[in-house]
Amino acid sequence: MTDTLTKPARVAMNGVDVPTFVATLGAVDSQREIARFTFRANGEWLAGTHSRVQFKDFYGACAENEHKQSYAVEGDHPEVLCGTGNAPTPAELLLGALCACLTAGIGNIASMRQVQLESVECTVEGDIDLNGILGLDPQVRNGFQGVRVTVAIKGDADDETLEKIVRQSVARSAVFDVMTNGVPVAVAAKVG
Amino acid sequence: MTDTLTKPARVAMNGVDVPTFVATLGAVDSQREIARFTFRANGEWLAGTHSRVQFKDFYGACAENEHKQSYAVEGDHPEVLCGTGNAPTPAELLLGALCACLTAGIGNIASMRQVQLESVECTVEGDIDLNGILGLDPQVRNGFQGVRVTVAIKGDADDETLEKIVRQSVARSAVFDVMTNGVPVAVAAKVG
Repeated sequence: MTDTLTKPARVAMNGVDVPTFVATLGAVDSQREIARFTFRANGEWLAGTHSRVQFKDFYGACAENEHKQSYAVEGDHPEVLCGTGNAPTPAELLLGALCACLTAGIGNIASMRQVQLESVECTVEGDIDLNGILGLDPQVRNGFQGVRVTVAIKGDADDETLEKIVRQSVARSAVFDVMTNGVPVAVAAKVG
Repeated sequence: MTDTLTKPARVAMNGVDVPTFVATLGAVDSQREIARFTFRANGEWLAGTHSRVQFKDFYGACAENEHKQSYAVEGDHPEVLCGTGNAPTPAELLLGALCACLTAGIGNIASMRQVQLESVECTVEGDIDLNGILGLDPQVRNGFQGVRVTVAIKGDADDETLEKIVRQSVARSAVFDVMTNGVPVAVAAKVG
């Protein structure tokens, strides 16, 4: 009887097709260029501080890809800052990107570890002193001074296992990495 | 005749109430705590890598504020990465936040400079090697390697003036600052 030493095959759970995910990891591992992606966002000014950003296509897995449909988000400044408040602020969208990234990571990691998730709630807060943006105080930065995230996670595992899933999602988050470590951003203006 | 030396009062344009904006700057300048804001994002796991993030309220101008309505965005991983592709990826949302931030800034700055905008299109691309996130190559970072922005701007001003508006929007962008310089992010896990 060696059955007790055999690791059971991991099964799909939490809406993640774990066997396919494992196979994908293997495929990428044997052909690393599959993992080179270019993501895109196309913004259009609507009026004042209000804009719409579309996400239509991206490059990845050695090919151009289209989303199922063209997704869009909008951004605006709040009325208290003389915007029209027709959408969340760009600063909130940034916090939202972090929220979505950590939550997606938790979904994948929990499933790979065969932990059934019950709920994940991710709360992000960022403090910003607009004296920077408004040009009123040169000592104040434009961006957030600090960001706090609280992840409330429930699932069929002990506290330590659940906490490790959260920690691993942070350790492997694209948005967390960019937000904490920065990235070079080149801006070109096309005028006229 | 000293009229030729008198600067004309700036008027509302591009959907920006410039006189109120100028008055707001004056008010903040005389009471700096007005400009201290805390923005929030509340994410909820739906399934797999799919989540919904809500933006309901924020602190600012010395008070709690509610958006006109609760806004939401969703994030998901694409099917090619074993997600369900039901929303843009978190990495795209990050690019979208930058797009919306620069565009909002251009709306305000052009209006303050009394330039009538015709159109602003902001294209953002970010290159990411998912061998980082997937844990296949420890040399590869999790986040974008680099981000490129192209802003196409048209308005009733000469090329130099339009280009300077774009440059100023970069110089005063909260999201650009965070993305290029980073921000401390503290993550707490609440388990069970």
